[in-house]
Amino acid sequence: MKKVKTAFVVLAAGLGTRMKSNLPKVLHPVAGRPMIGYILDRLKKFESQQTLVIVPPDVPNIVDYVTPMKTVEQTAPLGTGHALLAARDNLKDFDGDVLVVFGDTPLLTKKTIESLLTARRQRIDPAVVVLGFRPSNPGEYGRLVLDSEGELEKVVEFSEASDAQKEIKLCNAGIMAFDGKRLVSLLDALNNDNSKEEYFLTDIVGIARQKRWICSYVKTENPKEVMGINTLRELAEVEAEMQHRLRMKAMDDGVSLIDPDTVWFSYDTKIGKNVTIGQNVVFGFGVTIGDNVEIKAFSHLEGAVIADRAIIGPFARLRPGTVIGKEVRVGNFVEIKAARLEAGVKASHLSYIGDSRVGAGTNIGAGVVTCNYDGFNKHVTEIGADVFIGTNTALIAPVKIGKGAFIGAGSVITKDVVENSLAVSRAPQKENAGWALKYRMRKSEKTKKTQKKA
Amino acid sequence: MKKVKTAFVVLAAGLGTRMKSNLPKVLHPVAGRPMIGYILDRLKKFESQQTLVIVPPDVPNIVDYVTPMKTVEQTAPLGTGHALLAARDNLKDFDGDVLVVFGDTPLLTKKTIESLLTARRQRIDPAVVVLGFRPSNPGEYGRLVLDSEGELEKVVEFSEASDAQKEIKLCNAGIMAFDGKRLVSLLDALNNDNSKEEYFLTDIVGIARQKRWICSYVKTENPKEVMGINTLRELAEVEAEMQHRLRMKAMDDGVSLIDPDTVWFSYDTKIGKNVTIGQNVVFGFGVTIGDNVEIKAFSHLEGAVIADRAIIGPFARLRPGTVIGKEVRVGNFVEIKAARLEAGVKASHLSYIGDSRVGAGTNIGAGVVTCNYDGFNKHVTEIGADVFIGTNTALIAPVKIGKGAFIGAGSVITKDVVENSLAVSRAPQKENAGWALKYRMRKSEKTKKTQKKA
Amino acid sequence: MKKVKTAFVVLAAGLGTRMKSNLPKVLHPVAGRPMIGYILDRLKKFESQQTLVIVPPDVPNIVDYVTPMKTVEQTAPLGTGHALLAARDNLKDFDGDVLVVFGDTPLLTKKTIESLLTARRQRIDPAVVVLGFRPSNPGEYGRLVLDSEGELEKVVEFSEASDAQKEIKLCNAGIMAFDGKRLVSLLDALNNDNSKEEYFLTDIVGIARQKRWICSYVKTENPKEVMGINTLRELAEVEAEMQHRLRMKAMDDGVSLIDPDTVWFSYDTKIGKNVTIGQNVVFGFGVTIGDNVEIKAFSHLEGAVIADRAIIGPFARLRPGTVIGKEVRVGNFVEIKAARLEAGVKASHLSYIGDSRVGAGTNIGAGVVTCNYDGFNKHVTEIGADVFIGTNTALIAPVKIGKGAFIGAGSVITKDVVENSLAVSRAPQKENAGWALKYRMRKSEKTKKTQKKA
Repeated sequence: MKKVKTAFVVLAAGLGTRMKSNLPKVLHPVAGRPMIGYILDRLKKFESQQTLVIVPPDVPNIVDYVTPMKTVEQTAPLGTGHALLAARDNLKDFDGDVLVVFGDTPLLTKKTIESLLTARRQRIDPAVVVLGFRPSNPGEYGRLVLDSEGELEKVVEFSEASDAQKEIKLCNAGIMAFDGKRLVSLLDALNNDNSKEEYFLTDIVGIARQKRWICSYVKTENPKEVMGINTLRELAEVEAEMQHRLRMKAMDDGVSLIDPDTVWFSYDTKIGKNVTIGQNVVFGFGVTIGDNVEIKAFSHLEGAVIADRAIIGPFARLRPGTVIGKEVRVGNFVEIKAARLEAGVKASHLSYIGDSRVGAGTNIGAGVVTCNYDGFNKHVTEIGADVFIGTNTALIAPVKIGKGAFIGAGSVITKDVVENSLAVSRAPQKENAGWALKYRMRKSEKTKKTQKKA
Repeated sequence: MKKVKTAFVVLAAGLGTRMKSNLPKVLHPVAGRPMIGYILDRLKKFESQQTLVIVPPDVPNIVDYVTPMKTVEQTAPLGTGHALLAARDNLKDFDGDVLVVFGDTPLLTKKTIESLLTARRQRIDPAVVVLGFRPSNPGEYGRLVLDSEGELEKVVEFSEASDAQKEIKLCNAGIMAFDGKRLVSLLDALNNDNSKEEYFLTDIVGIARQKRWICSYVKTENPKEVMGINTLRELAEVEAEMQHRLRMKAMDDGVSLIDPDTVWFSYDTKIGKNVTIGQNVVFGFGVTIGDNVEIKAFSHLEGAVIADRAIIGPFARLRPGTVIGKEVRVGNFVEIKAARLEAGVKASHLSYIGDSRVGAGTNIGAGVVTCNYDGFNKHVTEIGADVFIGTNTALIAPVKIGKGAFIGAGSVITKDVVENSLAVSRAPQKENAGWALKYRMRKSEKTKKTQKKA
Repeated sequence: MKKVKTAFVVLAAGLGTRMKSNLPKVLHPVAGRPMIGYILDRLKKFESQQTLVIVPPDVPNIVDYVTPMKTVEQTAPLGTGHALLAARDNLKDFDGDVLVVFGDTPLLTKKTIESLLTARRQRIDPAVVVLGFRPSNPGEYGRLVLDSEGELEKVVEFSEASDAQKEIKLCNAGIMAFDGKRLVSLLDALNNDNSKEEYFLTDIVGIARQKRWICSYVKTENPKEVMGINTLRELAEVEAEMQHRLRMKAMDDGVSLIDPDTVWFSYDTKIGKNVTIGQNVVFGFGVTIGDNVEIKAFSHLEGAVIADRAIIGPFARLRPGTVIGKEVRVGNFVEIKAARLEAGVKASHLSYIGDSRVGAGTNIGAGVVTCNYDGFNKHVTEIGADVFIGTNTALIAPVKIGKGAFIGAGSVITKDVVENSLAVSRAPQKENAGWALKYRMRKSEKTKKTQKKA
């Protein structure tokens, strides 16, 4: 592709009232990332580009998310043409190509964007290039009407289409490339003389043809990539397709997924070689997994870095700030948060390790809890290497356990423990012979009495 | 619809031996409710109606479930016609419309029932109206044969259909509306002169036509709604379709479902606005959720009321009698049963709170257990507001913790604690320097010896 | 079928580099069993057979798995014909039938294998019988070209097929039966005069026809059963189909699956009558379940035997060596390993029971842990019948609790407890009035100071 400057305009001013949600539409997450993030991320990869995002008025969290990209407010929801008009002043001296995309089509690929730009830059020098697609059911999509040369004659809305035009299978995806030098004159000719009193961007094709400028189109082979999101149902459909892509890619990269349909990735999940992932595993943001790792069923991971040969789960919960060393074993009903477990640590059952460092080879018994919270602040627990923490032990942070120490089961450790010592807080075991017999007799008599009374 | 009295007859006498289950067929649950409950619930919404349920002999749990609706026993499984004959004496003086439906088609909609009654009440005054459907594969369903007027001529069983009739796509759903004044004379003409020696309700169309009475049909657009259940496979299919309906409805109402296919609703689940539900959430009977709530992945909820802005899960289990206040946080591996958690309570990890009241703002540490059972009876734990319960604490009910109290980690609390005091039961931490070193030497020598011997 | 000796040759020498995995392809599990295990198991059921497995050189774990079946190494990956040539010397004096199957098609049924042998043994005495299938998309599969008699003329690779041949829908599944007496002469005529310089087994049909020997084919109705596995995607597809079979069979046998798509069976899972299985249940190897059992959602079972009327889950983890008695209740966040729970035991919440025996009727409180590991060895915990183990108790193995004993909550039990006694290790509850008030004041002042400084 020859070096031409490109201006991307991302239309993101729709509030998505049909989502019935407080969150602005383009911030709804798909695979853990606000949907607009996908298109912004793809656009960044193009050279010599500038990006302008058209946002609704007074929605600061969209602007915050999009920053440092430039934003322009569309003052009122008066149609896609009106949205692009908001960018008019920014584009009026721009002589490269202008590509208009949507903030709510996260499945659009880089390849398709490239194909639009390539078509814009072909010899015939079209003023406008429109992206077409062939859905299995064209329904009420606008249709692309071609001329005898096979170039684009106009985009006709379904409501205005003749019966013959309704038979056309090639539909309008809404995404367009323009010759920047000619765009402003096209925009200035747009009007809202229609029943909805809106400015339709698609009218621009007719305007260009009146000026005897060539219009063209490209077609995507995969209709799914232009799926827009206007309802929570559509959000779920796009999420499903995005997950499908992530799952297929993972398997192609050598990750064994026992049931791919029950593994949910975040857009940024990174996985090494020879990794197996069981049924029902949820990846949140920020997970990186090394080689030869096994993630067993029913695990929930977020913000965790996991080194080679670790085994996680089933029923493990790793929260942000978790760093798992080589050959570590995190078992069932164990929660780790903001903690580093060095190589070979075992935390096999029913524990909470938070705000902690645990040295290599240490064994954490079942029911061990790091008490990191005193009701006001969080404190750190430091456990050395080769320590043995007995069952049902509470470690009251801030506290340090020296390497090689042994903590007796059921202890509450409030003071630092020196290395290689035994620390224990435990009342002596007392026995009261025959007590249980009497207790049962008393209890069952009482129960009988209560029953009699009732 | 003009006011005509309607008698509904629900055929529910089939035992469902092909289910291979001890439970009578119509009591198998779909979305948590015995399947017959759906049709009964829909019928209740009609005015001026009476409902009669035809039940098998000697199956008291069907009668119990159906009560207070009237039931009549079908004495032997001799066909659908025989089933309706069981209602003969109840219907013989009834001059309204009679609608015959099945106890095993929980997907049948109110709209379709109405369309049958409307068709019954049209000008041409048909004696019988049959519900038809067009399955994608008509297979061995009975076919609706129409006459030259487009009215129903007869219902032909697949086994008796001619090749031409087998080409008919319109099939018999079995559901029928009758003119009550003429029904008894039709029923009395039914016979079992056929190879199965059964009374087929479908024969009634032929009988009516012989009497020169008009028969009619209506068609459902959705073949799924007449799916009957005869096997566990079919039960699973109907469950899937019911869940599909509930999931679509939830999303249409503004509930975000990250993966709708992995959220299982109960028929009575109620959810407020702006709620997000993660992957793999199971709703049992009796869950009500307020606004702005988040239910994270791997949660299992039954009989729980959850107020606004609460965050539940992942891996949370709420059992019947749970009342969750505003902004409460229930985290991983936490079980709540018959307990009220006031606003702002946090129970973030590895706890069991049963038969309890927990005051606003209280913090429940990891590993806290309310010991509500003494081997004989259940007792109540009352925890005031702004209490801090330290890690691994056991609260031996009945016990009260005054507001603002602080319970040290690892305690066993057997006596009431006054407000704002510190309560703790803890043996002092003792240390034995170098013990762990000797222990490891001793153990590893022993292990070596054992290995030598072996 | 008349008694003819049969030699089965299983081609399992492919390493499956496209799997991108360290594990040799045929050892990748499907429903918990190395995929080659399925075909080996099916072949064992034939009488008068011998089986020879063609393995890659120097992959001892395949040989180990296949043993005691005979293996022959294919020295280099030079095609399917070359693989069978590796068996030449073993087959040269064999006068029965030879059936060549693949190690990577675990869905192949016994019925289809029989149909191939039956076709081999028909009157026309074909030298070769090939298995054909009709995929929905024939794509680049080889095609079966039939002669005017309807017998097999040749197998044509897609790359060499004429346009007319590409229209053929009947494809080559690769599986073949041979007349053993003629096989060696066919094998000896194979060559690698083709672009890939490989020996194609399919060439053998052409060779046989040149010798004027009849070749024949049989067709499977279910194209899925010949699905081979070359990538992790294909492995996931075959796993899904295998799970589908296991789920349908379970339901046909009377097991209620609330959502069949979320129950994952092992190939050897055994389930009794009137069992209900909730959503999201994973069965590992070696699970046997009695009658009237309920397995609730989010349970993970491996190597466990469960007796009648037990209720397991939700969120239960049963590990190998678990034996669950009648009417036992294992609740949420409970892990059982190498332990026998006699009839009526309840372990309802947040416990780890490992290397233990628990007598009938015993109640295990929440947070109870058997401390089976001392950092070096595992030890056994023996608990008698009708024992009550209080909440948050640690049982330090080896230890015995006599029948009828009562263990107070929060205890650490290190010594044996005699029957019917009360054992407890617990520091007295102390209270410090007003402490919490002062603590909060101190803490909040400190926090204020810290904030000032910052």
